[in-house]
Amino acid sequence: MKKLVNNPVNVVEEMVEGYVRAHPDYIKQLQSNDRALVNARETKENKVGILIGGGSGHEPGFLGYVGEGMADGVAVGNIFASPSPDPILEVTKAIDKGAGVVYLYGNYAGDVMNFGMAAEMADLEEDIKVGMALATDDVASAPKEEKDKRRGIAGEFFIYKAAGAAADFGYDLEEVVRIAKKANQNTRSMGVGTSPCYLPQTGEPSFEIGDNEMEIGLGHHGEPGIEKGPLETADKIADRLVNDILADIEITKGEEVAVLVNGLGSTPKMDLYIVYRRVEQILSERGIKIYRSYVGDYITSLEMGGCSVTLMKLDKELTDTIDHPVNCPMFVQK
Amino acid sequence: MKKLVNNPVNVVEEMVEGYVRAHPDYIKQLQSNDRALVNARETKENKVGILIGGGSGHEPGFLGYVGEGMADGVAVGNIFASPSPDPILEVTKAIDKGAGVVYLYGNYAGDVMNFGMAAEMADLEEDIKVGMALATDDVASAPKEEKDKRRGIAGEFFIYKAAGAAADFGYDLEEVVRIAKKANQNTRSMGVGTSPCYLPQTGEPSFEIGDNEMEIGLGHHGEPGIEKGPLETADKIADRLVNDILADIEITKGEEVAVLVNGLGSTPKMDLYIVYRRVEQILSERGIKIYRSYVGDYITSLEMGGCSVTLMKLDKELTDTIDHPVNCPMFVQK
Repeated sequence: MKKLVNNPVNVVEEMVEGYVRAHPDYIKQLQSNDRALVNARETKENKVGILIGGGSGHEPGFLGYVGEGMADGVAVGNIFASPSPDPILEVTKAIDKGAGVVYLYGNYAGDVMNFGMAAEMADLEEDIKVGMALATDDVASAPKEEKDKRRGIAGEFFIYKAAGAAADFGYDLEEVVRIAKKANQNTRSMGVGTSPCYLPQTGEPSFEIGDNEMEIGLGHHGEPGIEKGPLETADKIADRLVNDILADIEITKGEEVAVLVNGLGSTPKMDLYIVYRRVEQILSERGIKIYRSYVGDYITSLEMGGCSVTLMKLDKELTDTIDHPVNCPMFVQK
Repeated sequence: MKKLVNNPVNVVEEMVEGYVRAHPDYIKQLQSNDRALVNARETKENKVGILIGGGSGHEPGFLGYVGEGMADGVAVGNIFASPSPDPILEVTKAIDKGAGVVYLYGNYAGDVMNFGMAAEMADLEEDIKVGMALATDDVASAPKEEKDKRRGIAGEFFIYKAAGAAADFGYDLEEVVRIAKKANQNTRSMGVGTSPCYLPQTGEPSFEIGDNEMEIGLGHHGEPGIEKGPLETADKIADRLVNDILADIEITKGEEVAVLVNGLGSTPKMDLYIVYRRVEQILSERGIKIYRSYVGDYITSLEMGGCSVTLMKLDKELTDTIDHPVNCPMFVQK
């Protein structure tokens, strides 16, 4: 395992420091907590604040998505570990402009606990209204009947996009939460892992996999998937991922989707576009219309190999959020 | 070596197909040649056309940089191999709007030959004026006195940006070439490789490297660097790369630069920002001002490990080109 780091204990601090210094017009650290980052431009009065966060190692998730049209602030955790309630609360106080704050995060036990505690503290100590919407897009992580037990993976990107736009449109807290939850309800992801990432502090791989194996449904932290087997072609992998998604959510002929083919860290864009090619073919054969496509590294796991496919079923309201411009250090959409 | 591909012989065709289908509002294939891609929106009358290209496997370079504010078209080669003159000529014909076309590419023998032949054919057969500017930014690849023998690496991004803006500003062919050449003259890069990429067709690594080794000055196709040694910390690597650059080009206190910390393919953004952190410290200590920073995968080598640092020394004219907005499928700047 080779990494371009100094002392592995300091990777998150040094990344955050580099990030803030690279993009001072976009992002600043709060003086009260160096894991609490907010948009360098003050959140508008009476706009609902959007707060995201989670463990580090998923860059551009999550700090890369603070900016115009997406999140107002982010709480930064250690590698693959939830941020503690403190930075969440500090960001909440900084971005609340009288309309409350919506927390968006993936459905992981640590995050659920810490964001929950921060929300309570915001309510009791600061009198700030907090809404929440969790990402539970990973089809592989629990049965269809238990969607609320599923993990959040790359589909979080669409939830940020939807909620960020809704807040910009001037919607109130309940509306922003409703739209974020609808985005999550309409979003499904399936991933495949081909090689592990390595944790900077231990040097240990996040999971074990054979030389010619792949694992379908693998989680973003190496959580076990649903099937291990020999590495298949890109087309067969895409077939599997898309078919599993379409077995889980009804998307009928003529309906529109947003597509995200997400790299897990070390997968070349060449491979991602080859996967996209087949995703587009399958959807096209079924008469499902692709409204907009995103292909690249959106939520990663350090240098993990593999990719995920995410579909968000669109209606007029979600389409408007997809069209909304964004200007973040790691993602810009005109 | 695990890749998400089908038949390795078809990786470039399938990537291009996926790419064009993912971004139909941005890019189209010419009917005359499927390796010839142009902006989906017609180039403006009397605007100088900007043509880029090179081997595949460097994505987002080069096809990712066709769009508003950057290139009007791209000729796509096989993996790490120059495009042949045919697609170059076809793109030239498609994007010439009476003001001529400027070719921008890296200084590699195959590219020099094929772009040169295409330029001759454009002149003789089509009566289209062609200008050229080569990227020769890799400090490690030839001595200071022989800058014109150097390879082009990630600094090409700044040259595209400068020339793309100059063409948009309405400058004529000579002016666009002058600015592109100035951008190249003012740009220096130094890279470090930590792990090879694997060629899809052969499965062979692009270079050999020990388990705990790094190679300073390694080229984008695995060309030998200038020094192999044990893997150093991110700070020491950044020191080496920036100091080698600053020994090669005089940038004095108070002068401004644009900075690019570029990942070679499989290097996490975490590591790139840790490297950036030290780059910023060094420049700051020397009183060199960073006008704008880019951190991420801009010109890669499939899944190669490592990064490069690029500095472009700015004057008013180049600063204006850096500020110019861009809207490409793989790079957007507001």
